[in-house]
Amino acid sequence: MKPKIAFLKEEEIPRQWYNVQADMPTPMQPPLNPATGEPIGPDALAPVFPMNLIEQEVSTERWIDIPEEVLEKLLIWRPTPLIRAYGLERHLQTPAKIYYKNESVSPAGSHKPNTAIAQVYYNKVFGIKRMTTETGAGQWGSALSFACSLFGMPLKVYMVRISFDQKPYRKFLMNSWGGECVPSPSPDTNFGRKVLAEMPDTPGSLGIAISEAIEDAVTSENTRYSLGSVLNHVLMHQTIVGLEAQKQLQMFGDYPDIVIGCVGGGSNFAGLSFPFIRDKIYGKEVKVLAIEPTACPTMTRGPFLYDFGDTAATTPLLPMYTLGHTFIPAPVHAGGLRYHGCAPLVSQLVLDNLIEPRAYTQLQTYEAGVTFARTEGIVPAPETNHAIAAAIDEAKKAKEEGRQKTILFNLSGHGLLDLSGYDSYFSGKLAEYSLPEEEIQNALTVLAPYPKPKTK
Amino acid sequence: MKPKIAFLKEEEIPRQWYNVQADMPTPMQPPLNPATGEPIGPDALAPVFPMNLIEQEVSTERWIDIPEEVLEKLLIWRPTPLIRAYGLERHLQTPAKIYYKNESVSPAGSHKPNTAIAQVYYNKVFGIKRMTTETGAGQWGSALSFACSLFGMPLKVYMVRISFDQKPYRKFLMNSWGGECVPSPSPDTNFGRKVLAEMPDTPGSLGIAISEAIEDAVTSENTRYSLGSVLNHVLMHQTIVGLEAQKQLQMFGDYPDIVIGCVGGGSNFAGLSFPFIRDKIYGKEVKVLAIEPTACPTMTRGPFLYDFGDTAATTPLLPMYTLGHTFIPAPVHAGGLRYHGCAPLVSQLVLDNLIEPRAYTQLQTYEAGVTFARTEGIVPAPETNHAIAAAIDEAKKAKEEGRQKTILFNLSGHGLLDLSGYDSYFSGKLAEYSLPEEEIQNALTVLAPYPKPKTK
Repeated sequence: MKPKIAFLKEEEIPRQWYNVQADMPTPMQPPLNPATGEPIGPDALAPVFPMNLIEQEVSTERWIDIPEEVLEKLLIWRPTPLIRAYGLERHLQTPAKIYYKNESVSPAGSHKPNTAIAQVYYNKVFGIKRMTTETGAGQWGSALSFACSLFGMPLKVYMVRISFDQKPYRKFLMNSWGGECVPSPSPDTNFGRKVLAEMPDTPGSLGIAISEAIEDAVTSENTRYSLGSVLNHVLMHQTIVGLEAQKQLQMFGDYPDIVIGCVGGGSNFAGLSFPFIRDKIYGKEVKVLAIEPTACPTMTRGPFLYDFGDTAATTPLLPMYTLGHTFIPAPVHAGGLRYHGCAPLVSQLVLDNLIEPRAYTQLQTYEAGVTFARTEGIVPAPETNHAIAAAIDEAKKAKEEGRQKTILFNLSGHGLLDLSGYDSYFSGKLAEYSLPEEEIQNALTVLAPYPKPKTK
Repeated sequence: MKPKIAFLKEEEIPRQWYNVQADMPTPMQPPLNPATGEPIGPDALAPVFPMNLIEQEVSTERWIDIPEEVLEKLLIWRPTPLIRAYGLERHLQTPAKIYYKNESVSPAGSHKPNTAIAQVYYNKVFGIKRMTTETGAGQWGSALSFACSLFGMPLKVYMVRISFDQKPYRKFLMNSWGGECVPSPSPDTNFGRKVLAEMPDTPGSLGIAISEAIEDAVTSENTRYSLGSVLNHVLMHQTIVGLEAQKQLQMFGDYPDIVIGCVGGGSNFAGLSFPFIRDKIYGKEVKVLAIEPTACPTMTRGPFLYDFGDTAATTPLLPMYTLGHTFIPAPVHAGGLRYHGCAPLVSQLVLDNLIEPRAYTQLQTYEAGVTFARTEGIVPAPETNHAIAAAIDEAKKAKEEGRQKTILFNLSGHGLLDLSGYDSYFSGKLAEYSLPEEEIQNALTVLAPYPKPKTK
């Protein structure tokens, strides 16, 4: 039998995270104070995040040790398996070899706990007594509830209303871990009340939910906010995914020609791809594809500008591909990809041509997801379906070209709590959304008053 | 760091199933023809099951090779991890070492695919073109849909109505894998129509659903029925769980004093415990606990009698602990444990004092499940909570006695598609059911006309 699944032993788990900032050809441009246009210092973030995480955020150290207490929790499900997708390959009759890293085996069903556990740990050792966060599809809120539960940390989750309504099980899941979950916009914050007054029927957005969670954190005692994506330290915590995958591909005697991940904020994509992008920076040939929905085409159609991370414009300005912080994406089922911006690290690497972005429609991604479920057996999360759609396209292209490409993608999560989307797909009710050019123009107008980042 | 998780490499996966019939102190008593009271031969089962599985059903070979094509599919998620529950141990302040085998990492979320894949394979090589089955909580129907999908086998699932209504996502999941799923009793079979006419509001039962699925199989062309538990070959396919666990405990340098599983039909329990029961038969000291709900107390309160496997009384008579084939259990959330009988293999081993049965209330099991979720991070299936409740009790007992017992239990599935039960628990709406003594008397009356098995 040909090798099919690679498990690492416990002692082979990576002991350090990889910080891509150490190797980027263009250094990161700093976050700016929107009032002054000047770079902000670490102190400005202190009301929002604990200082030990802020230090990680700005670090340019290449390798950062994973604390033992974090490793112990990661070992509830890590190292995750790397699997050769023979079933999908046969179905596509492709000469390509397709591998996927199965992050869906975590207790929360996605890659998100990798950073959730690290963040709760650092908050705890810093003396923080309560945390807040937002969640889109519910993956992040679940993951942070899970992590908070393991460390005995109280948590309040602001969940984008459209997902809260579509996915009631997510709330039950957070409750099972002791997390409190409310739909956003909520009446619990000033910003939430303001939005509700203006748009009582809004489906909500990640931007709004972030604003509420930050407001709660900075106005409550000994409370800090936690973000599941976008920020440098969050992406770094995810690199354990790619570092494991590199070891596992060595077990197969293989190296990828193409590395693929879906991108909302960018964390699962970064987690898998950054260690490979490091190889690429040092001369290795590897194509890195970042896949987003056409309904929220940040990287493929948005401008690279300084923008706020949240709708209420309370965060520092971050340099990123963005559709503008006032943009509210269509209610696609891939709630985790409904973010107006894109991680600054990923954005800079796109700008430097180290990452190639692509966009897929909702229908394309569900077709790919169902094909994967019926050939490989795992029903993927709607977000993950974006990566799978690209992997299938690349495998078909390899067939046309008659070349045995090696494709690696991140199976960032399973779809067991997102099955209503599959129901819509099977009953022919899946909506498609396209983004009018005016929306792009609108982003430019909204961001006109702010400083511009360098693009060369 | 102390060892926490044991992964086997791909090449360490067991290559043979273990057949406990080779080692049982009391040989199995044969299935009987209810009309004649005589033992039935393999041919009598041929309209229901393919002959290659019937041969496995009656085999007394100790080791049976796992076909390569079955192994290839199992390697989508196997070998599963064995995990030391340090978080739970700390919470209980117990000197006991608690290990769990994590079967929840399968794409269907439970141990069920272990036999589903094997059964679909054997049906396929026998030339069967379509399959039918029943499902309680939905775990088995999902697992068989998953397996049928991988082999391109059409499937119809009759799902117990109470679960069908409580768990809509289960249907969507089966659909995602291409399986058809209808609530049982259904208007699609003679027996279903009859039950609906007599009891239009019945919550259904596993027994009714089995009757419908068998009727469909024997009246449709080139169609066979598949059962997810109870039968000898089904339990044997699950022994890969215990065989892996034995190798993994060796990696920890440990051996269990106590092995625990929950029992509905008996398959996840048998899968983990039979390899250890073999050791016990040959002199090893190990306590084996089989845990059932007080709402369906087959082993703890039912008589050991010959009974039908299904409500319509269409199967051969099987020797087992049973509440009578007409018994309809209360609608507890642990739908997979709502079966009137118990696997003949497990029943005989209970009779021979190799297995110790215990019953827990619904509330006790949810308390245990929430404790586990908040200390170990995995939200367990309601069925699995029964095993956890017993593991916690044994760990507490070890604390009282001051003894460092080693406890091993089967985490047979996660609860991500059963979260409505947790919602009931948290909102104080979880119902308790106790079984009046009349029900036991009723079983004796119903079964009075049939032959009696030997009890010594």
